[in-house]
Amino acid sequence: VLVSEIGEFELIRLLAREIGVEYPPHPGAPGQRGMLVGLGDDAVVTPQRTGALIWTTDTMVADVHFFAGRTAWPDVGWKSLASNVSDVAAMGGEPYLALITLCLPADFCVEDAQALYRGLFEASQAFGVTLGGGDIVRSPVFSITVALSGWAYSERLGTPRALTRGAARKGDIVAVSGVVGDSAGGLQLLKDNGPYVDAASQQLRSAHERPQPRVELGRAAIAMGVRCAIDVSDGLLQDLGHVARASGVRIRIDASRIPISNALRETFPSRAMGLALSGGEDYELILVGRRAAIEALIDASATPLTEIGEVMADDETYVAVVDEMGREIPLATRGWDHFAKP
Amino acid sequence: VLVSEIGEFELIRLLAREIGVEYPPHPGAPGQRGMLVGLGDDAVVTPQRTGALIWTTDTMVADVHFFAGRTAWPDVGWKSLASNVSDVAAMGGEPYLALITLCLPADFCVEDAQALYRGLFEASQAFGVTLGGGDIVRSPVFSITVALSGWAYSERLGTPRALTRGAARKGDIVAVSGVVGDSAGGLQLLKDNGPYVDAASQQLRSAHERPQPRVELGRAAIAMGVRCAIDVSDGLLQDLGHVARASGVRIRIDASRIPISNALRETFPSRAMGLALSGGEDYELILVGRRAAIEALIDASATPLTEIGEVMADDETYVAVVDEMGREIPLATRGWDHFAKP
Repeated sequence: VLVSEIGEFELIRLLAREIGVEYPPHPGAPGQRGMLVGLGDDAVVTPQRTGALIWTTDTMVADVHFFAGRTAWPDVGWKSLASNVSDVAAMGGEPYLALITLCLPADFCVEDAQALYRGLFEASQAFGVTLGGGDIVRSPVFSITVALSGWAYSERLGTPRALTRGAARKGDIVAVSGVVGDSAGGLQLLKDNGPYVDAASQQLRSAHERPQPRVELGRAAIAMGVRCAIDVSDGLLQDLGHVARASGVRIRIDASRIPISNALRETFPSRAMGLALSGGEDYELILVGRRAAIEALIDASATPLTEIGEVMADDETYVAVVDEMGREIPLATRGWDHFAKP
Repeated sequence: VLVSEIGEFELIRLLAREIGVEYPPHPGAPGQRGMLVGLGDDAVVTPQRTGALIWTTDTMVADVHFFAGRTAWPDVGWKSLASNVSDVAAMGGEPYLALITLCLPADFCVEDAQALYRGLFEASQAFGVTLGGGDIVRSPVFSITVALSGWAYSERLGTPRALTRGAARKGDIVAVSGVVGDSAGGLQLLKDNGPYVDAASQQLRSAHERPQPRVELGRAAIAMGVRCAIDVSDGLLQDLGHVARASGVRIRIDASRIPISNALRETFPSRAMGLALSGGEDYELILVGRRAAIEALIDASATPLTEIGEVMADDETYVAVVDEMGREIPLATRGWDHFAKP
């Protein structure tokens, strides 16, 4: 069934059903859980609360950010929310409410839209996000835009705090969660369009299509006194570059300490380090802070966290990657630019 | 200059400059005014505040929602924010913070993107909205998505209140602000691609391209005890239909009382009533409330507000339009469905 055959309102009704909301709302029906005014009005309204709000948005365009027809629609839904959750995690915040905008071609299948919403709903359950409606419009090209709000970290009666890119200081330790490069490996497998039967391939593909943002780690980091973070979305080096520029510091990364999975090393033996340095969309957290804070976090956190480098100086903006002898490794590619020529 | 020639980061820098924000942020620079963490981090963070949040989002796709090449880019920027502001106005709220997502073809002109941002910035100044960053991605088709948050109306120490579609009650009066149909008239002129030299044409085109959402009126309405509202975005009749369905009521509208501008009557003598009933995007407010509240609002408000009908019964869901003799006028078209066949 095509979306043009059922019309906008029936489509919204079916998608709302995927997330457990009755649409259109009718008199006497219970409203959307946890909302003052739920889905189906001009806008949603939340209950009253005190706090500092985090706001972010992220878009996936068919055949630009994913391969339509290769990535399953529930995975597109999952990732579109997860990438936003990761931005909130990188601020040390708590994800809260998301708005979803779908741009759909008139010949888009209703079943695919429903599958997309199933993945969105799964992610919303996994990360504690309320789906507060959005907009559905016709477009020649499929895209999904998620706008996500969250609450900034705050201790009882304390002022809100956030992890920022500009808070790295000379002498700080640089750590990264999990492993990096798996997502880029999974992307490469998708490009090759192979069968992905082995466990290593499945791990890489899952890293690319079902990323697990580090919400708990971000909150634990801020509680431990860490002040600087960024998530790995553009690629480890490029994201470290954002930190170096915003903080005005020189960062040194030890290549040998970068956490790379066995799956990535097995699948791409000669390219694993390159994918780890420049691949994007791992949605791991880079945390930068005083040694005591980072080490306490490594001890306390259930999330694997690896020390990979140090902030060396605050008189220039630079990221150097060094080998085991301390010699700088020359780097060709530094990450992802949406408009750069190939 | 094409966006692919300057790259993503330089583009963001130029667009941030249009809204008076330095990007990328560098050490020692003042942050974005009014924000705890401004544009240029993983997400923006607002200062702490207590309240109930309103959330809405709206998208404009090139050649679906506007004619690229006919509507000037500043007007696209203005309207993309204004349509969201209107949704907040329809809840009786105060617009607050917007995130902007641009989907841009690689051959999109940097100058056009800057012009778009000039219009966005103008609208943000006019409606008191902070532009809190967003996302820029490559796409075969231009689109702009605005996600807007606002604060729900609340009296000092009171609980938040919002105007909803479901609060119409039998005996309520139905009123509409300003005039309706001008925007649809302006759209028709754009389709005809004429010269628009006369004042009437310019008024219609301005209604379509520079809509003025009714923020003050929404707030005044809620203060006066009105509880039900919707903005005219899909068309007067269709939007009244949303109210009728959400409230479970029968609404009667007197055709002769619908406020139609002289400009619309002069430009489209035979079609003015049809455009007023079914044309969308006027971004006027339909307000439904007790007679005393509506009349007090008409007296107190600087915004023109016209009584056009009444809520007749609460035993069915229906909108009837009657002539001066009280006879129901049969209606063919009831409004806008994004996926309906022409």
